[in-house]
Amino acid sequence: MALVRLIEYGEASPEVQAVYDDIMQVRGTDWVNNFWKALANDPAQLKRMWENVKQVMGPGTLDPLVKEMVYVAVSATNGCEYCTYSHTAAARNRGMSEAMFAELMAVVGLANETNRLANGFRVDVDEAFKRQD
Amino acid sequence: MALVRLIEYGEASPEVQAVYDDIMQVRGTDWVNNFWKALANDPAQLKRMWENVKQVMGPGTLDPLVKEMVYVAVSATNGCEYCTYSHTAAARNRGMSEAMFAELMAVVGLANETNRLANGFRVDVDEAFKRQD
Amino acid sequence: MALVRLIEYGEASPEVQAVYDDIMQVRGTDWVNNFWKALANDPAQLKRMWENVKQVMGPGTLDPLVKEMVYVAVSATNGCEYCTYSHTAAARNRGMSEAMFAELMAVVGLANETNRLANGFRVDVDEAFKRQD
Amino acid sequence: MALVRLIEYGEASPEVQAVYDDIMQVRGTDWVNNFWKALANDPAQLKRMWENVKQVMGPGTLDPLVKEMVYVAVSATNGCEYCTYSHTAAARNRGMSEAMFAELMAVVGLANETNRLANGFRVDVDEAFKRQD
Amino acid sequence: MALVRLIEYGEASPEVQAVYDDIMQVRGTDWVNNFWKALANDPAQLKRMWENVKQVMGPGTLDPLVKEMVYVAVSATNGCEYCTYSHTAAARNRGMSEAMFAELMAVVGLANETNRLANGFRVDVDEAFKRQD
Amino acid sequence: MALVRLIEYGEASPEVQAVYDDIMQVRGTDWVNNFWKALANDPAQLKRMWENVKQVMGPGTLDPLVKEMVYVAVSATNGCEYCTYSHTAAARNRGMSEAMFAELMAVVGLANETNRLANGFRVDVDEAFKRQD
Repeated sequence: MALVRLIEYGEASPEVQAVYDDIMQVRGTDWVNNFWKALANDPAQLKRMWENVKQVMGPGTLDPLVKEMVYVAVSATNGCEYCTYSHTAAARNRGMSEAMFAELMAVVGLANETNRLANGFRVDVDEAFKRQD
Repeated sequence: MALVRLIEYGEASPEVQAVYDDIMQVRGTDWVNNFWKALANDPAQLKRMWENVKQVMGPGTLDPLVKEMVYVAVSATNGCEYCTYSHTAAARNRGMSEAMFAELMAVVGLANETNRLANGFRVDVDEAFKRQD
Repeated sequence: MALVRLIEYGEASPEVQAVYDDIMQVRGTDWVNNFWKALANDPAQLKRMWENVKQVMGPGTLDPLVKEMVYVAVSATNGCEYCTYSHTAAARNRGMSEAMFAELMAVVGLANETNRLANGFRVDVDEAFKRQD
Repeated sequence: MALVRLIEYGEASPEVQAVYDDIMQVRGTDWVNNFWKALANDPAQLKRMWENVKQVMGPGTLDPLVKEMVYVAVSATNGCEYCTYSHTAAARNRGMSEAMFAELMAVVGLANETNRLANGFRVDVDEAFKRQD
Repeated sequence: MALVRLIEYGEASPEVQAVYDDIMQVRGTDWVNNFWKALANDPAQLKRMWENVKQVMGPGTLDPLVKEMVYVAVSATNGCEYCTYSHTAAARNRGMSEAMFAELMAVVGLANETNRLANGFRVDVDEAFKRQD
Repeated sequence: MALVRLIEYGEASPEVQAVYDDIMQVRGTDWVNNFWKALANDPAQLKRMWENVKQVMGPGTLDPLVKEMVYVAVSATNGCEYCTYSHTAAARNRGMSEAMFAELMAVVGLANETNRLANGFRVDVDEAFKRQD
């Protein structure tokens, strides 16, 4: 059970409803997920976070599916249950197949493994990796 | 300074040299980075890890550049200095532009932020995200 | 379900009951939360941890509410479900309003974001931050 | 050495200089720290992050010093070197004494300890903590 | 509910059944736990991970019980619910008593605490710790 | 450079010197490492942490070497540079061979990998793991 009340559309202020409307319009859905309903307790934070998500996850140089898979990678690394569910769903909506999900998790798992080997042996960064030319 | 000796090619056993040779051949380079030189203190672990990296990072359903960017995302999330340097270099070698790197970091940063908002408010997972049909 | 039995007051040894009594007295409550009932399987560890909590969370130079909010910040960052629930409750008992909770989470989220941007870009620490005079 | 070039004021575009000017004005300083110089490689991200920092760390219901200490708590928990240096400096500028810093770290350390005890024993969340009335 | 289907023995391909058979034989059990049933959606990853577990957790210079306890320590530190349950069970099967579990958790908790004190104060590594002769 | 002054023995108060003396006596050394010199800025915290370390790392049901290796496992998982150096040195002093260190890191790396696979696939905990009888 969430630590704050989840604000439903019908009970929301016009300010909150406007953000909910924008979320549904941008995503082409007819519902808003709980994450936003929790944030809605503070309309200014709700608006701020949505503007950030819109800007960062919107059109850019990276493919939208790639961005969702990166989101899943970070969420699995941090062990965030909510975000793993929500962004895996989003990535599937954008075309992530089961084979791609399995391969993504393999990369995430391996990266978490070698991160600790490098940290544990305190491996010196190669000079070649520091050059930026 | 690493916590174990870094084994150079010239002093390595034939077993270790064979892995080094394979690393250089697969990557098309004429040098081996320090990570492997640290692992080489235990040839069985060296071989195991290299076989894993070859299998996971080799051809599959995901683009090789995407896999390197996922690796960078995980490494930055975990704060692994060595892996952030080495996989950013690898991603750049595979074509990651500065604009792509900036956008990748924006996604990684945002995911780390919303992971904590979801965890902090203990947001309930929406039923819609749990369906798998 | 916990991985160890939760020791209830009625079945506890006098040594454990003494710690439970002290917890209730210091906190002005008539019950002990599950965390302590789990630790009670090893009375020496129970006593050690309670002494630590009493010393660290007791009177000092920081406001008790601030200390509870810092505890929530760390727990949300680590994704500890139990601690997020228990310390959010404690912070609310000490006066944390809903507006304060929302603002606290905003800071926690942002810090987790910029932590990864700094780690991902490997930003050099400014010399000005290293001075201690 | 940072993985991206640090953009100095003199070589920055007017768009970046405008953000730098705002940072210095809001903070009452005559210099900009490296974090922003790294972000400046992507002016849109620079502007986005600065707007977030201004909003979240600006006036609200929490004391500015408390917010900086929460930032330090998160950064130490995540092991972010850059952020620990920069936000400890900021907290000291806002009045954090050495005694307060020591006490803050004691809370951070203890929270990290009990987070793992709760996670390791998988302690069930008390029903009393789930009520929100 | 898992994000992928759990593949039961009866519906598994011969390739997957062969891995399941090996898991049961090596462990002397007549069932396979859910972790492997999730991985089985990608038989190549299933086989790769099982070969890794067999090699790393098999006979070596460290006691098998010690290795399981290290696994529990890492899982509790990362807050991985599944792994904490499964490896605590494995450690108990190998002889971990309740007293040993409590002591293990005490070490894990303390290490997580001092990790943050060292990170928060940015303590310089003593030269004596860097020598390897 | 540490964020607090490192208090040397010669300049320390009698209260701090007493802790330093106890550290050296318990460890059979003639020097104190920087971690304690940082904590010494707050004598009460110094004493508290040392009493905790003495109790947790002292004689118990687990072998002292095992406890040091668990400490290294946690420190590598968290990426704590200071603690990885200091506790690897301590483990070597207690008899950890290079082969044991390599095997320990292999377990730590693998645990970090499977932790993320379990978290990423959100694998349901097997009922068999929840029984405690």
